[in-house]
Amino acid sequence: MIEKIKNTIIENKLLSIGDRVIVGFSGGIDSLTLLHILCNLTEYKLDVWAVYINHSLRPSENIREEQLLEDIGKEWGIKTHKVTIDIPGLLKAKPDSLELVAREERYRVFKEFRAQIHADKVALAHHLDDQVETILYRIIRGTGLDGLAGIPIARDGYFIRPLFEVTRKEIQEYAALHKLSWLEDSTNHKLIYQRNKIRLQLLPLLEESYNPRIKDSLIRLSKLAGAQRDFMTEMVTPFVAELSLTTADGEIGLKLEGFLKQPFYLQYYILKQFLLQVKPDYHLETAALEHLLEKINQEKYQFKAMHIFKGIYVHGEGKNILFSKSRQALPRKEMPSFPLTAPGLNVIPDLHLQIHIEVAPPPEDWSQVSNRLIYVAVSKLSLPLQIRFWRPGDVFWPLGGPGMQKLHDFFINVKLPKPQRKEVPLLVTADDQIVWVLGYRLSEKFKVDQQKDQVWCFTVGVSN
Amino acid sequence: MIEKIKNTIIENKLLSIGDRVIVGFSGGIDSLTLLHILCNLTEYKLDVWAVYINHSLRPSENIREEQLLEDIGKEWGIKTHKVTIDIPGLLKAKPDSLELVAREERYRVFKEFRAQIHADKVALAHHLDDQVETILYRIIRGTGLDGLAGIPIARDGYFIRPLFEVTRKEIQEYAALHKLSWLEDSTNHKLIYQRNKIRLQLLPLLEESYNPRIKDSLIRLSKLAGAQRDFMTEMVTPFVAELSLTTADGEIGLKLEGFLKQPFYLQYYILKQFLLQVKPDYHLETAALEHLLEKINQEKYQFKAMHIFKGIYVHGEGKNILFSKSRQALPRKEMPSFPLTAPGLNVIPDLHLQIHIEVAPPPEDWSQVSNRLIYVAVSKLSLPLQIRFWRPGDVFWPLGGPGMQKLHDFFINVKLPKPQRKEVPLLVTADDQIVWVLGYRLSEKFKVDQQKDQVWCFTVGVSN
Repeated sequence: MIEKIKNTIIENKLLSIGDRVIVGFSGGIDSLTLLHILCNLTEYKLDVWAVYINHSLRPSENIREEQLLEDIGKEWGIKTHKVTIDIPGLLKAKPDSLELVAREERYRVFKEFRAQIHADKVALAHHLDDQVETILYRIIRGTGLDGLAGIPIARDGYFIRPLFEVTRKEIQEYAALHKLSWLEDSTNHKLIYQRNKIRLQLLPLLEESYNPRIKDSLIRLSKLAGAQRDFMTEMVTPFVAELSLTTADGEIGLKLEGFLKQPFYLQYYILKQFLLQVKPDYHLETAALEHLLEKINQEKYQFKAMHIFKGIYVHGEGKNILFSKSRQALPRKEMPSFPLTAPGLNVIPDLHLQIHIEVAPPPEDWSQVSNRLIYVAVSKLSLPLQIRFWRPGDVFWPLGGPGMQKLHDFFINVKLPKPQRKEVPLLVTADDQIVWVLGYRLSEKFKVDQQKDQVWCFTVGVSN
Repeated sequence: MIEKIKNTIIENKLLSIGDRVIVGFSGGIDSLTLLHILCNLTEYKLDVWAVYINHSLRPSENIREEQLLEDIGKEWGIKTHKVTIDIPGLLKAKPDSLELVAREERYRVFKEFRAQIHADKVALAHHLDDQVETILYRIIRGTGLDGLAGIPIARDGYFIRPLFEVTRKEIQEYAALHKLSWLEDSTNHKLIYQRNKIRLQLLPLLEESYNPRIKDSLIRLSKLAGAQRDFMTEMVTPFVAELSLTTADGEIGLKLEGFLKQPFYLQYYILKQFLLQVKPDYHLETAALEHLLEKINQEKYQFKAMHIFKGIYVHGEGKNILFSKSRQALPRKEMPSFPLTAPGLNVIPDLHLQIHIEVAPPPEDWSQVSNRLIYVAVSKLSLPLQIRFWRPGDVFWPLGGPGMQKLHDFFINVKLPKPQRKEVPLLVTADDQIVWVLGYRLSEKFKVDQQKDQVWCFTVGVSN
């Protein structure tokens, strides 16, 4: 296994001699093994730092993990560092997916600590099975071709993954051989997390009953997808240069005249590059990108204002499309409705609104349903969903109520002052039925009736 | 649903007014619905022919299906035609996957009958769920990006799929509404077929527990893959023209000098186009294409002879790579071994040999194991597998025998004349252990021991 890792490091130029390397340490088998290997890679003369991030999610385990960090540090003679982040607190302030927030925070901490100690690299312990699970997860949840490339072996020039070409089994064998003692993260076995379900249920089923070599197949697919992404990114560079402009206000613009002549797939990639220029660490959903592309091709020089999530604002101006991070509210008449990607994370900057739609098991404890979190029976929804505002004649069946009533009357019942009524966002279906008066009440018509209903969980939060 | 189908027909230009259309009729719900819809598409004034192909696989059902064809023909006033093909007989003559042979024969029959009656189109009843299942099937079995595009809505200008954008559920509703009575194909529920398992087990599981909208996700992915394939095919056209040559013998050649300068992904597509030029109806496995590409990039102007499956022979000559369908035997010294794609269909033209490797359940009836068909425990194999010939010192443990013996002695035991011994193909593992003396005996070391072993079934046949 060591030879394989050395090859990975050399072929992908992951390390240089004398590098100061931060190793993300969780106490689990993968990161402990990575730490052990890097400490024993004597030819590189690395200055290894083990950094532990306490997510404040499993207090008793966190204590044991911190203790392990300390023990290992002394025993192996390496520097250690620990950081505590308050994930539950962050989630309360800004409801979002736990995994997403935890991931973003982790990267932020590593970046900051790297700058602080002037480290050259941050080594993470992702391995081949993680890559396989990521690809499968993305296929199931919905991805474009680029997403099939999976996790990159290196990012930003300093996040590196030296274990990327070894399997979980090889890591287990190495850990056993070197008598490493690691800690088991109790959440690794909870099937409520889709990633765990894929690892523990789906992949074993596919290997057993469909294709014993499915991991090879998925890795091969991901390499091709990575190659096509690199090729296309290179390929569109001259087009992006030719088609871009910058306005006096600093907005980035796309010249429609040249753009509309290109074939669909090239347009798709060019547009992607424009969005990445506006926000370099952008995580774009394929569906949203396609939706925007379709709108541009339909409306051409008549392109109207629209928003897509994560704070990029796209609007037409003459023969150009402009992209900006501007959050200034548009006149209401220009924003009659906002389409939502479901499932997905939707951010509507003008409304300072963030709506996260997730596949979920029906909740066991219905008291979880709140003003900010609802569960809806998927089969009852006609898609796409939209956010819009009160219009004369709107009707609604408040959860638990006797039947349909005018939204006007509902607002009176909940004692909402008149000027505020037009400010309440409404979640509506494609056939314009009100599903949820955000912050107030779910509709009786869309509630989950039966255990076997397929369920989406909607969480609303404030976007900044 | 009718409106949706009409849109599909218009947007994809599937039909013209007055077309003579052959409808592939199986007696099942899909093809009966398609037939009913085309018969009632009065504005197109179609001349509809229902054509039934009897595969000689389910005799009692075949009789009922032919009867239904006749009844429908009379009742609806349309022309009918039936063709019988002897699939079991074809499989005996040339062992191969049943589904593959049946599919090829079906297309052949439709092509021939189309020419015979001068039909404009051949309409097939594939629908949206078939597409979803195809994409999932390919992902699981291993595919490149192009394979993700799935089934095309039209092919060769006359195979058309008018039901391509409607779901199985919509077809069922239509059939119920119009009181159609169809026949159920008994093999549709047999879980030994991977396609059935995907439809009946895997997709319901994924929808239920992972993503209720997974079908939308897969369809979206397939459309992107189709767009990227069309774009790349167009994109490489000038490169293919610039890099190609034709030898005096009519072989197609690729100029290495310009080729080797291109980025990997462009090379991949250029090579694909060359192979398609040699054999237009070529069904290439990604793994085989990548293997060839790797070899070309490693060996460059020293590229040696090699073969890839389905009868395309690739060899280096000076600064060019030549492609041909030539089957003349090479001098033995130039063909020490032939790598196999597993699972997959491998054709080795020089040896007139075809080896099909499939994932299979362990056989219940071990008498199926024959000189031409073996079952092997996958976990015992080190990959890639190869075909090679007897070398001095080769040893082998014949199935049921007491232990290892010299291959030389085995040949004496089975009374094989000396000159023929060097002609017997041997299936060997990556670490050069003999798995199978083709046509003679499996190795005891690779047999299936336990019910829970993962199994590959190897079938050997003669290629033409």
